[in-house]
Amino acid sequence: MIRILVTGGTLDKEYNQLDGELVFTKTHIADILTQAKCTAEVTIETVMLKDSLHMVDADRQSILESIRRCPEDKVIVTHGTDTMPETAAVVGQAVTDKTVVFVGAMVPYSFVNSDALFNLGCAFTAVQVLPRGSYITMNGKVFQWDNVRKNRQKGEFEPLS
Amino acid sequence: MIRILVTGGTLDKEYNQLDGELVFTKTHIADILTQAKCTAEVTIETVMLKDSLHMVDADRQSILESIRRCPEDKVIVTHGTDTMPETAAVVGQAVTDKTVVFVGAMVPYSFVNSDALFNLGCAFTAVQVLPRGSYITMNGKVFQWDNVRKNRQKGEFEPLS
Amino acid sequence: MIRILVTGGTLDKEYNQLDGELVFTKTHIADILTQAKCTAEVTIETVMLKDSLHMVDADRQSILESIRRCPEDKVIVTHGTDTMPETAAVVGQAVTDKTVVFVGAMVPYSFVNSDALFNLGCAFTAVQVLPRGSYITMNGKVFQWDNVRKNRQKGEFEPLS
Amino acid sequence: MIRILVTGGTLDKEYNQLDGELVFTKTHIADILTQAKCTAEVTIETVMLKDSLHMVDADRQSILESIRRCPEDKVIVTHGTDTMPETAAVVGQAVTDKTVVFVGAMVPYSFVNSDALFNLGCAFTAVQVLPRGSYITMNGKVFQWDNVRKNRQKGEFEPLS
Repeated sequence: MIRILVTGGTLDKEYNQLDGELVFTKTHIADILTQAKCTAEVTIETVMLKDSLHMVDADRQSILESIRRCPEDKVIVTHGTDTMPETAAVVGQAVTDKTVVFVGAMVPYSFVNSDALFNLGCAFTAVQVLPRGSYITMNGKVFQWDNVRKNRQKGEFEPLS
Repeated sequence: MIRILVTGGTLDKEYNQLDGELVFTKTHIADILTQAKCTAEVTIETVMLKDSLHMVDADRQSILESIRRCPEDKVIVTHGTDTMPETAAVVGQAVTDKTVVFVGAMVPYSFVNSDALFNLGCAFTAVQVLPRGSYITMNGKVFQWDNVRKNRQKGEFEPLS
Repeated sequence: MIRILVTGGTLDKEYNQLDGELVFTKTHIADILTQAKCTAEVTIETVMLKDSLHMVDADRQSILESIRRCPEDKVIVTHGTDTMPETAAVVGQAVTDKTVVFVGAMVPYSFVNSDALFNLGCAFTAVQVLPRGSYITMNGKVFQWDNVRKNRQKGEFEPLS
Repeated sequence: MIRILVTGGTLDKEYNQLDGELVFTKTHIADILTQAKCTAEVTIETVMLKDSLHMVDADRQSILESIRRCPEDKVIVTHGTDTMPETAAVVGQAVTDKTVVFVGAMVPYSFVNSDALFNLGCAFTAVQVLPRGSYITMNGKVFQWDNVRKNRQKGEFEPLS
């Protein structure tokens, strides 16, 4: 059994045709799992829908509490990319009895060329196969929470060393 | 470094607008990796483009040889779903020094609602994280080569036991 | 007010993941009009869901009756491309008090690269602007019913002269 | 022969994954016509790539000059929706020897659920069938330049009377 905790981020942004802005209205994770024809047992829980640049400490505590509280020991957290390593570090230091995988998208699922489906696939295997701990999976790579950063110039995640 | 061996299957089928049939013309794996913004190092090699119902023993030997011959010890094989377990078994019995992950799609990448991107994401983590051996990843689940079958009534992969 | 009569054809074909064949299960016209954000008043009526190669005289009579019976004098008929000119001719000779526009797709709406949305857009203007008579609109061109054929080698519609 | 003058607008916006903003990099009209399998003869000319809220009088004069200068008498102008009626009015008052059709999209072509393809289809028939003058086609309706406004609350075009 896998728990997916939704927190927002690029993945879930969609187009508001009235003002031309990208906004959150709801999560698309259920739609993604339908398209993926996912046969694994999953519970989806929306913790928040936030741009990760706007997350504050209280948000990270809220995510941490949701991870601790859920009965599953395999947890995927969808999250904005800009501060994903910060939240993964908060969780990595605090949670040692669950496998927690952070994942997001560089391009929203609502776009034709989104990487959301691929990244979520990466996270599904990671959460089932990796030992307990906190990880980030993005664009075909898997990172430990304490050895990853987002390179904003390149728009890519990379190891610190 | 990851080697992707392309063998065909539903994943790569596309529409022939002259006769209305689904056909193979080329693999879409490079397009998928571009959409996925994949940052892992990958070499793509097309071994064949076949519906797996039409694969014979010589085809499986050819796939086995390609796995043995390539320098990488992490190998993803894209494959039709109908006989994927048979080929995974041939490879599983013969190859013990590489991680080989078989993957495909229930709906071609050329369709709006394809599961190809998700499944390939699953395979990318699997091939990097799993110990040596032969595996199948489909629709969010990971299977050992000797404990998997395709349930054709449900259109799903499931463990034998 | 516009009536859309659905008769099947490539436009509405979708993928059956159990046997890998293209099949009809329902029309996608309502989905297309939602994506199109169509503000024109439309009534959709499914007359049949057939590959136009399998249409017989009785089918064309049934389509003709549906055109005659509906209260609207602007009628779009979605139709397979292979015998679209034959049906347009049956209607063109019999109906002189309505504008009837035949339209279809070279690639089903369920595919990423479908022309269905574009063609249906062409048909929407045609049915509102053209004088009474029977027409075909495909891939950016408008044809009179008595001066059109499908060039099957090129997969294009063209005038007879 | 049809001339398409590109001026920007929602239709051509795409996602910048480095900053999460919608931007112009190039027009997608050639891609749209490829997907549309358009068989009509077309010349595409990029006049500018602007959000129509940022257009000034000089921009509208530039569009007007491009319409006058091109050899074709059937001209499609892709344009942002917010000030499309203003530009259509400038052209409608000045150009009487060509058919000019303004068109855009409520959702960019780069999104899964874009109306761009449908609207462009509407414009293709309109420019070939309508008498000389200046028109707007959006979401299945055709408007004369002097009887149209954008209802920004509803995100729809509607007649003045």
